[in-house]
Amino acid sequence: MAKITEYSKEELQKLEKELLAEYDQYVKAGLKLDMSRGKPAPAQLDLSNGMFDILDGYETENGLDARNYGVLDGIPEMKQLFSDCFGIPTNQIIVGGNASLNLMFDAMMRLMVFGTEGNTPWGRLDKVKFLCPSPGYDRHFGITERLGIEMITIPMTEDGPDMDMVEKLVAEDASIKGIWCVPKFSNPQGICYSDETVKRLAAMKTAAPDFRIFWDNAYGVHPIFEDVKILDILEEAKAAGNPNRPLYFASTSKITFPGAGVSMVAASEEMIEEIKGVMTYQTIGHDKLNQLRHVKFFKNAEGLKAHMAKLADTMKPKFEMVLKILDAELADTGLLTWTSPKGGYFVAVDTLEGCAKETVRLVKEAGVVMTGAGATYPYKKDPKDTNIRIAPSYPTVDELEKAMKIFCVCVKLAGVQKLLAE
Amino acid sequence: MAKITEYSKEELQKLEKELLAEYDQYVKAGLKLDMSRGKPAPAQLDLSNGMFDILDGYETENGLDARNYGVLDGIPEMKQLFSDCFGIPTNQIIVGGNASLNLMFDAMMRLMVFGTEGNTPWGRLDKVKFLCPSPGYDRHFGITERLGIEMITIPMTEDGPDMDMVEKLVAEDASIKGIWCVPKFSNPQGICYSDETVKRLAAMKTAAPDFRIFWDNAYGVHPIFEDVKILDILEEAKAAGNPNRPLYFASTSKITFPGAGVSMVAASEEMIEEIKGVMTYQTIGHDKLNQLRHVKFFKNAEGLKAHMAKLADTMKPKFEMVLKILDAELADTGLLTWTSPKGGYFVAVDTLEGCAKETVRLVKEAGVVMTGAGATYPYKKDPKDTNIRIAPSYPTVDELEKAMKIFCVCVKLAGVQKLLAE
Repeated sequence: MAKITEYSKEELQKLEKELLAEYDQYVKAGLKLDMSRGKPAPAQLDLSNGMFDILDGYETENGLDARNYGVLDGIPEMKQLFSDCFGIPTNQIIVGGNASLNLMFDAMMRLMVFGTEGNTPWGRLDKVKFLCPSPGYDRHFGITERLGIEMITIPMTEDGPDMDMVEKLVAEDASIKGIWCVPKFSNPQGICYSDETVKRLAAMKTAAPDFRIFWDNAYGVHPIFEDVKILDILEEAKAAGNPNRPLYFASTSKITFPGAGVSMVAASEEMIEEIKGVMTYQTIGHDKLNQLRHVKFFKNAEGLKAHMAKLADTMKPKFEMVLKILDAELADTGLLTWTSPKGGYFVAVDTLEGCAKETVRLVKEAGVVMTGAGATYPYKKDPKDTNIRIAPSYPTVDELEKAMKIFCVCVKLAGVQKLLAE
Repeated sequence: MAKITEYSKEELQKLEKELLAEYDQYVKAGLKLDMSRGKPAPAQLDLSNGMFDILDGYETENGLDARNYGVLDGIPEMKQLFSDCFGIPTNQIIVGGNASLNLMFDAMMRLMVFGTEGNTPWGRLDKVKFLCPSPGYDRHFGITERLGIEMITIPMTEDGPDMDMVEKLVAEDASIKGIWCVPKFSNPQGICYSDETVKRLAAMKTAAPDFRIFWDNAYGVHPIFEDVKILDILEEAKAAGNPNRPLYFASTSKITFPGAGVSMVAASEEMIEEIKGVMTYQTIGHDKLNQLRHVKFFKNAEGLKAHMAKLADTMKPKFEMVLKILDAELADTGLLTWTSPKGGYFVAVDTLEGCAKETVRLVKEAGVVMTGAGATYPYKKDPKDTNIRIAPSYPTVDELEKAMKIFCVCVKLAGVQKLLAE
């Protein structure tokens, strides 16, 4: 295929005409599809329907009544399941409610109101800044922005955040209090942090004594094509003399039910005590019956992994379809670059500069709602307006095929029109 | 029965000897019973076991998949159920997670970090104070204390908090930002706020523009002997021109499962919008399957009320036993006064001044753990050391009979020893 970016004006005009005609056909066909979020498909959720009536009792393994009050930090068998899945000792785990997002928000609120390790609460400081590797997860940036924390965009490399930049900034500026990380199959690029990246994050010198790594391992057990082993940030931070630096989050939202999962926060034993010191005023305990439901359904980490393999089987044809169509329609056109993730929930693409918003707008006019362009950057502002997140999980493979064809026409149309305007 | 408080020294010494002998028998018998919390008994929880496998589908009435992401403020049918039970319009209700305590904590944290109606966030003020009608609920006072908010004890009358004192304080002091209220079958006295009390709370002039009533209607549908109608604080506040003043909390913790219930916060439409404005960053939505489970189990408010009648049947013999033994052992002795609540979870008693701690200590030595004396007051300090909370729900009637006999001996012993020491 010839690079469209090298077309003459006449060639571009001709192509624009063809694309407009094709686009019009799609608009007329009137597809209606929402691909805006990384929402699991009904077929994925069906794999967990066994949880509906799995409860044949309500006693935990240590004889507690899971229906009643008590157990602040989770029933032992749920801690064990998380422990086995993520390789974290049970005494460094607190089991939360139905979503890890809530645990991250709570962690941030605790830091705002109470601070950590005796340092000034962040809410009492004039200025607090956070590092935001981008493209990244919009809900992380949303929490930070809502709290009035200044966000600093850090470019992503294929090994994770640009660590030279991270190290320089945190060493100089004590108002930089933390960093958001999705270390495995990152949202949206599917990037896995290299060992060196994890080690540098764990060991780097920070001007702020209360610097915190928000380690959102949302896709820790979510390989699709191939699993990738990521270094354990808790161990690395401990070895580097910064045991209290990471707050490690995970959940079963994308394992069982997004609306009714079980979440986890892990940290050093000292931080676990600090968290519990506030949490004990916040709740008497999270939903233990749902914890028990999860344990009875999976039995153990092996059971959970077998379940994840089934989920991967549902995801594989979708990712393959996305990548196949991108390849067929846009390879070597010069109009789009993309990643081929080994797991996770997304495919991230980059258009020509200044074309992402227009592409998403065109796609929407043709009936397909994608994640808003810019959403993957702090303040929803993608500096180059290139990044688009494709979320293939919810549609069927057939729907996805249609949606991706529309998407490719729109990428071309926006690209060609931009080239013509230059 | 002659008043023991009028005994001669010789009579007291003789009685002390008899009581010590009786007490020794109880210590030797070695009963083990935890009555420290208002924990429902297994027999109460059994009444909700039907919820374990009630889910025969996962669609909400408006066709949403309750397993998946979404629905920030609760599924429509759960809002409707709360609406019908508490007489609050659905658009003034947000459904929460498994506990209203968590919603109260969150509300307090929002006020600390974000403030309300554009006022300075409480966490940025030098001094914040809260009114604490006492005896009251220890977990309310716990949240307040943990946040460094100064607590002011307000005496309870049989109509609710001492409103003359409340009105005077809030009119004078702008640093007084709120009040904790358990308006119906209050914890621990079972007091129901009079219409006048509710109206005065709703209408009183407060120096603080952002004064908030934390209205914890924990026992709103929990009559045992007789239901009592309490005025609706939301309506009264609106009528008085202070619509945003009350934050109204409730949950099914003591309706279905304390560990796996569904909670609610209600407020003016303006406050609901304000809450959602933060909540949308905190969570994508609470556990909708558990909401659906509750709705399918109860069907409607009538179903819930029928369930509450069954629960009342399990509580009635326990409250009767407590009151019968108190009456038989301590009526007219001058050593103890108590309330006879019409519903709720507790019976509150008052010993002679300075005898509550010693009574609870003696009872504990004999194997029965009661709520710590003082726990029902701010900073765990009962100024006169008289108040003890009896929580009859968890033990069986037989266990309760034994425990109450021990309790009565200890009340007498502590009382007699105090009289002898004077």
